[in-house]
Amino acid sequence: MPVKLSAPKAETLLPVKGVQLGYAEAYVRKPNRKDVLVMTLAEHSAVAGVFTQNRFCAAPVTLCKSHLSQSEGIRALLVNTGCANAGTGEDGLQRAQQSCQALAGLLNLKASQVLPFSTGVILEPLPVDKVIAGLPAAISNLKEDNWLNAAEAIMTTDIVAKGTSRQLTIDGKTVTITGISKGSGMIHPNMATMLGYIATDAAISQPALESIIQYAVNKSFNCITVDGDTSTNDSLIMMATHLAGNAEITAQSADFIALRDALTDVAIELAQAIVRDGEGATKFMTVKVEGGKDEAECRKVAYAIAHSPLIKTAFFASDPNLGRILAAIGYAGIDDLDVNNMELYLGDVLVAEKGGRATSYEEAQGAAIMKESDILVRVVLNRGQADVTIWTCDFSYDYVKINADYRS
Amino acid sequence: MPVKLSAPKAETLLPVKGVQLGYAEAYVRKPNRKDVLVMTLAEHSAVAGVFTQNRFCAAPVTLCKSHLSQSEGIRALLVNTGCANAGTGEDGLQRAQQSCQALAGLLNLKASQVLPFSTGVILEPLPVDKVIAGLPAAISNLKEDNWLNAAEAIMTTDIVAKGTSRQLTIDGKTVTITGISKGSGMIHPNMATMLGYIATDAAISQPALESIIQYAVNKSFNCITVDGDTSTNDSLIMMATHLAGNAEITAQSADFIALRDALTDVAIELAQAIVRDGEGATKFMTVKVEGGKDEAECRKVAYAIAHSPLIKTAFFASDPNLGRILAAIGYAGIDDLDVNNMELYLGDVLVAEKGGRATSYEEAQGAAIMKESDILVRVVLNRGQADVTIWTCDFSYDYVKINADYRS
Repeated sequence: MPVKLSAPKAETLLPVKGVQLGYAEAYVRKPNRKDVLVMTLAEHSAVAGVFTQNRFCAAPVTLCKSHLSQSEGIRALLVNTGCANAGTGEDGLQRAQQSCQALAGLLNLKASQVLPFSTGVILEPLPVDKVIAGLPAAISNLKEDNWLNAAEAIMTTDIVAKGTSRQLTIDGKTVTITGISKGSGMIHPNMATMLGYIATDAAISQPALESIIQYAVNKSFNCITVDGDTSTNDSLIMMATHLAGNAEITAQSADFIALRDALTDVAIELAQAIVRDGEGATKFMTVKVEGGKDEAECRKVAYAIAHSPLIKTAFFASDPNLGRILAAIGYAGIDDLDVNNMELYLGDVLVAEKGGRATSYEEAQGAAIMKESDILVRVVLNRGQADVTIWTCDFSYDYVKINADYRS
Repeated sequence: MPVKLSAPKAETLLPVKGVQLGYAEAYVRKPNRKDVLVMTLAEHSAVAGVFTQNRFCAAPVTLCKSHLSQSEGIRALLVNTGCANAGTGEDGLQRAQQSCQALAGLLNLKASQVLPFSTGVILEPLPVDKVIAGLPAAISNLKEDNWLNAAEAIMTTDIVAKGTSRQLTIDGKTVTITGISKGSGMIHPNMATMLGYIATDAAISQPALESIIQYAVNKSFNCITVDGDTSTNDSLIMMATHLAGNAEITAQSADFIALRDALTDVAIELAQAIVRDGEGATKFMTVKVEGGKDEAECRKVAYAIAHSPLIKTAFFASDPNLGRILAAIGYAGIDDLDVNNMELYLGDVLVAEKGGRATSYEEAQGAAIMKESDILVRVVLNRGQADVTIWTCDFSYDYVKINADYRS
């Protein structure tokens, strides 16, 4: 079950002026589930995206990048679950393009004004006819107050829908931000089998939005890992409809930081929700590495810990077998690491220093912390000023079960 | 259960002239198990070692390196299970040194002529008094025909003992090679929680032996992974007692290659045995990556596949969910990889080419191969001439169970 995470109530996901959402049950892969989502955007919306760095990126990712680089103005998004349309070659591109053309035809847009997204099984052809057949139903229920249904429509192995909202005042106007995400396996930075959509009605310039999405993704989706696998389909989209009535924000505006931080805050909550709903997760782990020479080496240590199956299974067992953490620090790849000059903390408890177990440490302390569902692992390298925080989950029987059974 | 692996029969592990082995039940951690091993070597033996690259290397690893660098001539090895003596700081070094001194005293040697080894739980003090108390019993049963007991005495989470022998004729003399190994978790190159000891009675120069151990380890123990964790204690030792009666072999000798290949063959069998006995393993996977620009990029791809929990759980389920392999190839880190110009084979079956599923591929073919216990995954990159082969295993419920319960 998800770790301290439940689905948002419908009324907590605030409508964003200029964003309408509609869904359909199109039987892309399984019957009786919402599996197609259509989002429409007001004219003159700014839209920015960040996508997987996997070389086997999916056909819709390729098309998204192409459509965003054209200046037609994005007006609609189309998401399907059940099939990733990845590892599908030229045929996959054509099918993704067909789905954009179909939606554009129904909405009186150009195909290049549609961004397509797919998530699900890789290496299978997209049943594009089914997706297209579902579009009229999705369009018929388009409305602004439909975020929870949208969050549900993009779920795959997710147990709970993920979404959150914020409001802030900019330029005397109330600005709303609402975001949804999906993903719980194949989760790793750069990015994960995750889809994220964050919309605001604020007026913000295209360059400012692009700056914010990079900032936000580095603080959020690029700081999570479930299993170290980077998906072929990861996409995060930020949209700004310009309907809140504020003067357009640029990177030089006084309110830029406030809006950036609010959007980033939403991104962090959506990213952490993915980890809390990580496949089979029973524990949410925050791994903080401090005192590194640079962020790169802090990341090496943090991910060595966060990816170690030995550590993740020990956390599942609530077993303070903390030597495994020292081993991971040791093989993280910092060649000149002085293991006699670093500290390891579990929560507030000093576990190891001077190359060995701290004399003050008692196993009962570690055992007590390991029973919590949210656990902090903190490593102090004492080499410099850089620090990195990432979030991950433990590794349970259910992870194996979910991934051994995923296609059945 | 181990994948096509059973313990060797005692009579198949051939004595090596000049190597005696004795064990004790010293209750280092658990009662009624062989947990201390003593090996003695004839005078003038050549000895070479390769050790973990983990920065948190264990105290005995530090001492081994120091003793090998002195020119006293190694005459004895001391191994204990139950405690790794790693993450134990200065105190751990002193305890390891005490154990060497004790054995040296009993055998009339210098402490620097003893190599110490420990394997087991990290971050706990070595109960050196128990180890020392076990030495007289181990010495009392020292004999040449004791390799199977020795293989059993170094087991931790291993299910079966691992050992093998070879004989060849060099210079008209019969040369014998016998090796044992242990390890089944925290297995990754450079190296693994593995201990390996390979002895021969051949006469071989120290430089030639050092050249051979490097060659052999790169073809064997550095090509295996179970969970991607690199241990603090890994050690591989090669020993040559010079008692076979052949003229001393150097790197220029006509017989050098034959002896090198025989020793390497033993190392490969011992390394593969560790994977076949991998924690929870039900399948043995060979991952071969061909046509890379260099070995480094082939290794990236091979390990991305071999470390992916998504792939390893799919193999456990015998599910040909092969898109996960494409995803791993895509995120392996080859930035200029042309995914439209590579092929993926499962066994002899072409699965993917031109960026997508091969038109000839039928899922029934993949499903049939996935039911085998030994499976070949072959990736052809079509970028150059380099290739790399590594061995790994699948990821099962039992992996989680073993590692969640390891200390209990």
